[in-house]
Amino acid sequence: MRKTYTYDKSREAFARAMKVIPSGIYGHLGPAEGCYTPVEAFPFYSSKAQGTYVWDLDGNRFIDYMCAYGPNVLGYNDPDVDAAAAEQRALGDCTTLPSTKMVEFAELLVDTVASADWAFFAKNGNDVTTLAVMTARAYTHRKKIVFFKGYYHGVSPWTQKIDYAGVIEEDVMHNIYVPWNDLDTLRKVFKENEGQIAAVISQPYMHGNFMDNVMPAPGFWQEVRKMCTENGTVLVVDDVRAGFRLDIAGSDHYFGFEADLICFCKALANGYNVSALCGKEFLKNTVSGMSYTGSYWLSAVPFAAGIACINKMKRLDMPRTLIEKGEKLKSGLIAAAEQSGFDLRVTGAPSLFYLRIADDPTLMLHQEWIAECVKRGVFFTNHHNHFINAALTDADIAETVDIAEEAFAVVKKRH
Amino acid sequence: MRKTYTYDKSREAFARAMKVIPSGIYGHLGPAEGCYTPVEAFPFYSSKAQGTYVWDLDGNRFIDYMCAYGPNVLGYNDPDVDAAAAEQRALGDCTTLPSTKMVEFAELLVDTVASADWAFFAKNGNDVTTLAVMTARAYTHRKKIVFFKGYYHGVSPWTQKIDYAGVIEEDVMHNIYVPWNDLDTLRKVFKENEGQIAAVISQPYMHGNFMDNVMPAPGFWQEVRKMCTENGTVLVVDDVRAGFRLDIAGSDHYFGFEADLICFCKALANGYNVSALCGKEFLKNTVSGMSYTGSYWLSAVPFAAGIACINKMKRLDMPRTLIEKGEKLKSGLIAAAEQSGFDLRVTGAPSLFYLRIADDPTLMLHQEWIAECVKRGVFFTNHHNHFINAALTDADIAETVDIAEEAFAVVKKRH
Repeated sequence: MRKTYTYDKSREAFARAMKVIPSGIYGHLGPAEGCYTPVEAFPFYSSKAQGTYVWDLDGNRFIDYMCAYGPNVLGYNDPDVDAAAAEQRALGDCTTLPSTKMVEFAELLVDTVASADWAFFAKNGNDVTTLAVMTARAYTHRKKIVFFKGYYHGVSPWTQKIDYAGVIEEDVMHNIYVPWNDLDTLRKVFKENEGQIAAVISQPYMHGNFMDNVMPAPGFWQEVRKMCTENGTVLVVDDVRAGFRLDIAGSDHYFGFEADLICFCKALANGYNVSALCGKEFLKNTVSGMSYTGSYWLSAVPFAAGIACINKMKRLDMPRTLIEKGEKLKSGLIAAAEQSGFDLRVTGAPSLFYLRIADDPTLMLHQEWIAECVKRGVFFTNHHNHFINAALTDADIAETVDIAEEAFAVVKKRH
Repeated sequence: MRKTYTYDKSREAFARAMKVIPSGIYGHLGPAEGCYTPVEAFPFYSSKAQGTYVWDLDGNRFIDYMCAYGPNVLGYNDPDVDAAAAEQRALGDCTTLPSTKMVEFAELLVDTVASADWAFFAKNGNDVTTLAVMTARAYTHRKKIVFFKGYYHGVSPWTQKIDYAGVIEEDVMHNIYVPWNDLDTLRKVFKENEGQIAAVISQPYMHGNFMDNVMPAPGFWQEVRKMCTENGTVLVVDDVRAGFRLDIAGSDHYFGFEADLICFCKALANGYNVSALCGKEFLKNTVSGMSYTGSYWLSAVPFAAGIACINKMKRLDMPRTLIEKGEKLKSGLIAAAEQSGFDLRVTGAPSLFYLRIADDPTLMLHQEWIAECVKRGVFFTNHHNHFINAALTDADIAETVDIAEEAFAVVKKRH
């Protein structure tokens, strides 16, 4: 049996943080969000990261399946991306005039992403999902936006729920929510709101939290595409989370349709801070007319990193190789669960797998198992999809399955 | 007479950009915004930057008074900031668990900024102005927000104007616009909207574009503070542009009052991509309850850079030294104008000076003069405030005044 980890230094640092930072660590990386249950099982701070590993403050090493919630796609501190970034940094990063790296990066995206005739760069996924919705409203002169239930498109008020803090009804009053994969309801919504729907915005498949992830039903996307075209509605794909882990040409390409606008962030530059909106030619003039910019949006270092990241993903035949690693892990984990008599469900794309032990609807068993994995060096979380990166080896997968097996046995023994 | 610059390579790169990027270069760094008039006078792309200089693609060197529109506060490629950033990068940047650099940076801001009891980090100025408004709405359970005419608080729909592309009336229907320095109107607005105003949001002084910049009238801020307190309204200072160029403890401290929330970005980390919302203790719990995060918000490299930047600003007795440099430049430019019989107005803080030749209300003379400066190696723009950085030397100021003098003479001769 492995020795389980303790987190004294993480806890001390968190106590310091609570004095000067609201909730200590906010957002999806913090213990407040609910993914870290029970909190005692999780470390809070890292001392270093390399490849597929992260070390916490107490010196514990983890095989990291959260990948900074997406950005780590090639491995932490990838030498090729870091070299390209360092070379650009010596010349300049955030300067009064942009570098031509911006043009090169846009050209590379146009060459790479099937539905990209142009690219617009910002910092957050939220910057480009918001720009997409504003562009759709400007182009169509309509207000309504269709979402699929279980969506996440960022933190701007328009993306949030009416009962969230700081959100007012006017922020979300033109939002229409349709169940995922439900073409009949979508058709009804288009009919009841004829000439009023500016955009349909959606992730390429339903990779929401606290739920098994769900692929599009056969023909779903083709029918959505058709309805949008017939109704003059802009089809926006939010590929912030799944982008480049399903298809280097965009997740719409993977599912055999074309988005009008597609949003990228996380895997775009292996953690260097940049996001992108790409889109079709007919919307380029509309975007040109938007008042939309930010202090750091033309920083050259993230552009250089993004160019190196995309070129390396192509050289490594990603994301096919990530999907293969994910398949291997998936079958290993399911077999490990069966050994202890558990029914582990692994849903979503294998490169973005979501885990749930189906034997217990309260999810308590699942949380126990996750906790036992984390305390032994496999960083999973409870209710969010995971991420595969290129630095994950067969040995890492074998060690993960080994730890998962031990964790299942521990949970089984307890109940 | 100096040889004037030409920009053939910048023009070629821009033609390439126009094919793959909406408007080629969007936002405030692009020629579309109106600051670059006549466009023939301006370069569009940089090849490198160092200290106070930027070089364009054609090899022309500029003394850069735009400082990337603010972020360059210590000089491009500052060795101390870059060393701190590189040290952190070797450990990790955007990882699954945050670094304790996040805690240290928050502690430093709480020590440095007078009205900061806590700090929350994001990427854009817009992220934190939006969080400020959402926090005020969540705390007060009110909807209305008071702005001062001439404001700029980012690009989110709530900050834009109703006639801007992609903005709908619901985005801005609770915005109330009051003239700057107009206490009577503000008092009236508070009376007419009793119990309904969530926040007053304002820059520390009026540094809007296309207008002489205007300091607060004596007693103005104290009276605004008083009205906010009496009405249970949250007072938000947007220090994104002026922050750390007026007072290291915050621009509210400079003007002798205390904000409830204060927004920082640009000068916070010498161009490394980070922004911060700081605020008073009574709002900390409200912020803790917000659903607000982003893919790169806990990246450690910008935190390390920010710590090094603030510590160095303190060592160099900034912003006092920036203000002195600005004063020297201001008197030199005014004297140069007088030599050719022009009335040059230099407004705003000397570290953030705004320029206008008052002899011609059409601003054509002003634009001509700016163009002649740019073509000789002084990067000014027409209708936006400028920025001073710590690497600017007396020799640079003397050269600037020299070029300005020649440019005034050229314009005088022409008319």
